[in-house]
Amino acid sequence: MIIVMRPKSSQSDVDTVTKKLVEAGLQYHLSQGESRTIIGVIGDKKLIAKLPVDVFPGVEKSVSVTESYKLVSREFRQEDTIVNVGGALIGGQHLGIMAGPCAVESMEQLLEAATVVREAGAQFLRGGAYKPRTSPYAFQGLEEKGLEMLAEARNKTGLKIVTEVVDATSVEIVSKYADVLQVGARNMQNFNLLKTVGRTDKAVLLKRGLSATISEWLNAAEYIMSEGNYNVILCERGIRTFETYTRNTLDLSAVAIVKSLSHLPVIVDPSHGTGIWKMVSPMSRAAIAAGADGLMIEVHPNPAEALCDGSQSLTPQNFSKLMGEIGAISQIMDKKLR
Amino acid sequence: MIIVMRPKSSQSDVDTVTKKLVEAGLQYHLSQGESRTIIGVIGDKKLIAKLPVDVFPGVEKSVSVTESYKLVSREFRQEDTIVNVGGALIGGQHLGIMAGPCAVESMEQLLEAATVVREAGAQFLRGGAYKPRTSPYAFQGLEEKGLEMLAEARNKTGLKIVTEVVDATSVEIVSKYADVLQVGARNMQNFNLLKTVGRTDKAVLLKRGLSATISEWLNAAEYIMSEGNYNVILCERGIRTFETYTRNTLDLSAVAIVKSLSHLPVIVDPSHGTGIWKMVSPMSRAAIAAGADGLMIEVHPNPAEALCDGSQSLTPQNFSKLMGEIGAISQIMDKKLR
Amino acid sequence: MIIVMRPKSSQSDVDTVTKKLVEAGLQYHLSQGESRTIIGVIGDKKLIAKLPVDVFPGVEKSVSVTESYKLVSREFRQEDTIVNVGGALIGGQHLGIMAGPCAVESMEQLLEAATVVREAGAQFLRGGAYKPRTSPYAFQGLEEKGLEMLAEARNKTGLKIVTEVVDATSVEIVSKYADVLQVGARNMQNFNLLKTVGRTDKAVLLKRGLSATISEWLNAAEYIMSEGNYNVILCERGIRTFETYTRNTLDLSAVAIVKSLSHLPVIVDPSHGTGIWKMVSPMSRAAIAAGADGLMIEVHPNPAEALCDGSQSLTPQNFSKLMGEIGAISQIMDKKLR
Amino acid sequence: MIIVMRPKSSQSDVDTVTKKLVEAGLQYHLSQGESRTIIGVIGDKKLIAKLPVDVFPGVEKSVSVTESYKLVSREFRQEDTIVNVGGALIGGQHLGIMAGPCAVESMEQLLEAATVVREAGAQFLRGGAYKPRTSPYAFQGLEEKGLEMLAEARNKTGLKIVTEVVDATSVEIVSKYADVLQVGARNMQNFNLLKTVGRTDKAVLLKRGLSATISEWLNAAEYIMSEGNYNVILCERGIRTFETYTRNTLDLSAVAIVKSLSHLPVIVDPSHGTGIWKMVSPMSRAAIAAGADGLMIEVHPNPAEALCDGSQSLTPQNFSKLMGEIGAISQIMDKKLR
Repeated sequence: MIIVMRPKSSQSDVDTVTKKLVEAGLQYHLSQGESRTIIGVIGDKKLIAKLPVDVFPGVEKSVSVTESYKLVSREFRQEDTIVNVGGALIGGQHLGIMAGPCAVESMEQLLEAATVVREAGAQFLRGGAYKPRTSPYAFQGLEEKGLEMLAEARNKTGLKIVTEVVDATSVEIVSKYADVLQVGARNMQNFNLLKTVGRTDKAVLLKRGLSATISEWLNAAEYIMSEGNYNVILCERGIRTFETYTRNTLDLSAVAIVKSLSHLPVIVDPSHGTGIWKMVSPMSRAAIAAGADGLMIEVHPNPAEALCDGSQSLTPQNFSKLMGEIGAISQIMDKKLR
Repeated sequence: MIIVMRPKSSQSDVDTVTKKLVEAGLQYHLSQGESRTIIGVIGDKKLIAKLPVDVFPGVEKSVSVTESYKLVSREFRQEDTIVNVGGALIGGQHLGIMAGPCAVESMEQLLEAATVVREAGAQFLRGGAYKPRTSPYAFQGLEEKGLEMLAEARNKTGLKIVTEVVDATSVEIVSKYADVLQVGARNMQNFNLLKTVGRTDKAVLLKRGLSATISEWLNAAEYIMSEGNYNVILCERGIRTFETYTRNTLDLSAVAIVKSLSHLPVIVDPSHGTGIWKMVSPMSRAAIAAGADGLMIEVHPNPAEALCDGSQSLTPQNFSKLMGEIGAISQIMDKKLR
Repeated sequence: MIIVMRPKSSQSDVDTVTKKLVEAGLQYHLSQGESRTIIGVIGDKKLIAKLPVDVFPGVEKSVSVTESYKLVSREFRQEDTIVNVGGALIGGQHLGIMAGPCAVESMEQLLEAATVVREAGAQFLRGGAYKPRTSPYAFQGLEEKGLEMLAEARNKTGLKIVTEVVDATSVEIVSKYADVLQVGARNMQNFNLLKTVGRTDKAVLLKRGLSATISEWLNAAEYIMSEGNYNVILCERGIRTFETYTRNTLDLSAVAIVKSLSHLPVIVDPSHGTGIWKMVSPMSRAAIAAGADGLMIEVHPNPAEALCDGSQSLTPQNFSKLMGEIGAISQIMDKKLR
Repeated sequence: MIIVMRPKSSQSDVDTVTKKLVEAGLQYHLSQGESRTIIGVIGDKKLIAKLPVDVFPGVEKSVSVTESYKLVSREFRQEDTIVNVGGALIGGQHLGIMAGPCAVESMEQLLEAATVVREAGAQFLRGGAYKPRTSPYAFQGLEEKGLEMLAEARNKTGLKIVTEVVDATSVEIVSKYADVLQVGARNMQNFNLLKTVGRTDKAVLLKRGLSATISEWLNAAEYIMSEGNYNVILCERGIRTFETYTRNTLDLSAVAIVKSLSHLPVIVDPSHGTGIWKMVSPMSRAAIAAGADGLMIEVHPNPAEALCDGSQSLTPQNFSKLMGEIGAISQIMDKKLR
């Protein structure tokens, strides 16, 4: 951390600050400029994090120079992490494609979607059994019945199942059925949930929060890894901005940045990221071209009848066409779809 | 809801849409403009919410004209709700002042803060026993020991206790000690938590999410009220914007807006809203002048020693001075501090 | 426009509103719901724009259903506009690549950059002679001397020149040297400048403002076209969001959206869009995969010596490598680089 | 500036960077941490600003520790600047109230508004003669005829005139009629306009840009002051955020922050800041309670007939009532209305 003193801070202010640092078991370097003094703080970042430096006398501001996450970082692990979900790989050269309906509605709807999705080349079936909804009066999901249908769809198609855990109490039951536990954007900083999935042996898909900085997102992944679960897949799904034409603003530069900061695989969800089915194909192509390790896409056999998010779901035809384009771009990126 | 058809949509497109509406048990009005047709949809908003109209043929966009919350709205209840916490009132003419340290650190620290806070005229003592933190390596709170200290501080000072519930599983234990259950900004859309506190008989302080729209915030309150708990206090605590000088951007216009849309009391947390102790007094005065029903302020006997948020905590002296100013402004606003 | 009346608005309120509409030469349709009345307003959008409906009695809110731009829209022109700059084409199947240094620094630097840029396959040389800078003390550009160097670089390389006009008064002189007049992000709503370039016969590159909605951006283009100049190229260059890791958040979904709303070509500037040279290649590939009609990229023979924006400039080697990748993706997109 | 080297940067990387610094005429201090080296750069901020340090080998990031503005800062001038407009004072203990219609429509309308405004206690009449509008088809103002009406209103009422200059070319003519030149939010970084008003002897009202950081806003003021005009009044008018209920999000914490960073007076425009007339009174009270030096408010004799912004204009009655409340709060703030 760097501490910037005010232009007119006194020598005794500086002495007070450095005394506090030493008391806290930290070292420091002083650099005296013409107009102000700057103090470089050196030592254990956990000790540094505890110091309320901004209230020390004569301090103008403090700037932290290192991130608080460790296990997530490229410094901790140089090579790309490849998450292996029962043989389906995500990361490194392996693109992981997850597709399916927003919500599990019925066995028929789910199986129809699953068949389409597998034939088009996806390895994962997504579908919500527990649906967090803005309004208490909206459809909230089939819950355990939905989980059972997902498991049956896996038996019939061989696809791996990705479904959401909405809180810590539901981790146990969802783990009985799912291959990948999805932590939704609204729960990205539900720390108890993060710790709980961190204690399972399931792969975890961690969606970026609607207004989460990249640093906060990686710290959330650190919560999971700090409990011992290293099978974390990050998912960019759009951030909230002033632009209202799209439901969210899909931040594809985050993909390239996260891949430089972390060894974890990063996929993109263009369905929630845009909220408009016509935008899903262009943004899916863009995501792969930007270096994403996979996609999560809403596909529904009949979007006009969907119980949720119909307006952002692809038809089977559109999804198949998209998969062809993705295949072509993946070659340029030196990645493989299977 | 209003459905806007594309300029070149055909009559059969319009017929398909209206057919879908009738099937869904809804009524409609057509208005044929020169360039396009607009369809006004009338009926139960729950039925309307389920329609994926944007994927119907020829539809350009849809616009919802009514909010999905009910119990929260002024239409449901005209007069201001006054929440009564064991005799301490918030709402209507009654300002509620909640103050105390960010985190409970020790009995001494807590009692010292509580004494200061009571003498300055607050009725509520705030303090965190469970601390959600961005990094898994930061101080996470004293947990139940902290709750016991809060209860003892209540016995010694008569102040009501406000403390955070970080998830559904901790609601039961926190309810044993607290007078007001605080739902934090990160949990504003933790729907299971909202339902759980909605089933208690405790007053609930619902903080606005970092990137929550006013509509999402009121829908979160609707989750609580829909479970039968009408003692909800809303708390504006700053939203995330591009401006980085302050930790968040305190949105005081939200106070005036929410009071026009809802009968629930709205208080303001300028400590988290700005993250800078020097901004707390100006923004506290501004909040009351804007019509807020109270304040939540971090006060620490010795900010420079605080284990969390020291840089946004007021000293006892500054807090006392502020309370004097608040008293003067409350008269202009025709409100009372006690 | 749709006018939503309050739930308890009286019949006389509705009558007053409809009377105002008729007086203004507009028609309307009433739709009476159970809880509220909705008024659909029909007629000339210019007349509608002038009505202060929100202050009419009993009105809760108004919602506009059509955009205020015309010439820019796909409704006005179905097929893609292809802008022809002395034989260099942008739009339709033609990708336009603009590259060069942030600022013109010297004849040597400019020529070296121009040679690199042309050999890699770009048709346009970009370079700033007038530099709008946040601080009055930063390098402000070589002004007319810079323009002369750009013209000489054109003579030597055959590249078309793209350079910025910072205000209406400089349009005349810049037009003497440039092939494409660039309107910068900060000037996107400098309406006098927009009208002035709209009266020239030069192609205009209109950058999206830092916080401009897509609708405001297209309205700015409408200002130019409404003066008779239809050779407008739109350029997405990142919007301002809460994320601080990148200089801006490049909004690639805007590319797909604008191409659905408008017939004008849209290119992307990943250099300003990210501010980090390492992000330029991934985001350039992503832009083309999303459907962009071209790119504007900062290339400097020696970024470490650049007088401005060195940290977001590509080296000649990196730019050549990128052009190869762009060529491959352009085939998948059925577009051509030349 | 502080340069943070990568964890694995070599000694030769560090040497290269320090060599560059010395070549640029700067000094430095090294601080070697366990995991990384940090370089504190000392010297003329103009020289520092020119260094593309982020492209130097082994550099992870750089952090600037001082602002680039000077004349604007409290370091340059300790005491509050009091701007004197022909006897009407703004700054220090003096509140300046500017009110009037969005646009000058007719002599009758303007005089009626001016009379109301003066009787309620304002010293300044605001009114637009040149109106920058998002759409080229919206009402653009009466231009010079409007200026003449403003001048006549001054003669009849003694109020000082505040009106907008939309670009550099119109500064001369507007200066013939106005007492205060208003630079609008869209023009906050129209640097040629800033320099031009900086060369006049008129007071300048500088509105904050829609997405301008506080630092960019103060740098814009620095442009004006650097040309010799020190009579600058800053005006917060709302920033663009994700919240759509209000037209903008009025950032009142910016008032307190700017007053700590700068000696210039800061006023608030709650009319544009909220876009909703009902929010104007609460936010005006809040602004004064937060420490603002004045207000700019839209008042129209008959908002329902206004040619622009009727829905955010106060009626004469509401404005008079507000002025009474402002008077009461100003006493608590130890300021005077006249």
